[in-house]
Amino acid sequence: MVQGTLYIVSAPSGAGKSSLIQALLKTQPLYDTQVSISHTTRSARPGEVHGEHYYFVDKNEFNAMIAREAFLEYAEVFGNFYGTSREAIEQVLATGVDIFLDIDWQGAQQIRQKMPQARSIFILPPSTAELDRRLRGRGQDSEEVIAKRMRQAVAEMSHYAEYDYLIVNDDFDTALSDLKTVIRAERLRMERQKQRHGGLISKLLAD
Amino acid sequence: MVQGTLYIVSAPSGAGKSSLIQALLKTQPLYDTQVSISHTTRSARPGEVHGEHYYFVDKNEFNAMIAREAFLEYAEVFGNFYGTSREAIEQVLATGVDIFLDIDWQGAQQIRQKMPQARSIFILPPSTAELDRRLRGRGQDSEEVIAKRMRQAVAEMSHYAEYDYLIVNDDFDTALSDLKTVIRAERLRMERQKQRHGGLISKLLAD
Repeated sequence: MVQGTLYIVSAPSGAGKSSLIQALLKTQPLYDTQVSISHTTRSARPGEVHGEHYYFVDKNEFNAMIAREAFLEYAEVFGNFYGTSREAIEQVLATGVDIFLDIDWQGAQQIRQKMPQARSIFILPPSTAELDRRLRGRGQDSEEVIAKRMRQAVAEMSHYAEYDYLIVNDDFDTALSDLKTVIRAERLRMERQKQRHGGLISKLLAD
Repeated sequence: MVQGTLYIVSAPSGAGKSSLIQALLKTQPLYDTQVSISHTTRSARPGEVHGEHYYFVDKNEFNAMIAREAFLEYAEVFGNFYGTSREAIEQVLATGVDIFLDIDWQGAQQIRQKMPQARSIFILPPSTAELDRRLRGRGQDSEEVIAKRMRQAVAEMSHYAEYDYLIVNDDFDTALSDLKTVIRAERLRMERQKQRHGGLISKLLAD
């Protein structure tokens, strides 16, 4: 069986990362590409499905998973824990499916250490003006809030060089096509192709 | 200026390598992708143009180039020398052009040592039957000649795993699209994108 690839995707908010991943998943069948599902200690909101949006677990279970090093990365956000289970990821990768994991630079660093074969993609907005426009959103936030978002965006972007690929999201369709190009090319890499075409290679070399 | 990438392409004869490279170059403008031009000590045949098909040089000049380590690789074939000039390659790469170099596994090994940033692609035929069919060509050669070709093909293929990418030339258009995918994805890699978007990145991080 061909092993799937784990893709770590990071970006400052306002770069369009979530929309790109959503659009990508819509064009790829589930047996081909999926998004990573996190474990979390927060309660399910109406409409959220266990095993589809998150794996909802209580704090004891989460702590037990930390203790047995079950997480590729985890973090606390506003008192709730979120983590990426190594086992859940590996089970899906083993079926040949590529997984996309939307995560910040800190999570990306943790995952790279534990899974060096993961590929990472950073997405940038096309200009400072456009980033500013996107961070302002509907214009209902104070200048202070927007300035804070901009500082967070710059902090995230300062880690761009740690990633394998860089995509500038100027035109959405081009950026989406760039994402697909990366996936297709990674499938042509020797490691993947050796697994996929093992039978053919044996026959050709047996002659 | 963005630095181009040197692509080493190898394959057993019968895999369709030359047709694929020719077709690729037809779809890409010259300022974008070119094929490497070798130096050779053999005489120009009618219609061959110096600087277009080969750089034709005499034996003294070729030996002087060997002595000053001007070649990324060179080899003797039927008493004539053929070599790839490092300077010629680097001058073109410096203009941002990608270069394709059609070469066997031995030349590929030499180039990888001297230019580790080069990418390499191996092309395989889709089956033993199809390889045999292609090696037989128009059916005018003896079984002995064909058996020798097959042995050479197997010897070349035994080095496939040394390459970065593997393309199986089953359907020509798919294989051509695979080649283009590799080029496009390599252009999205951080090293290239950092150069291409240096201005944007400085502005985004200056905020």
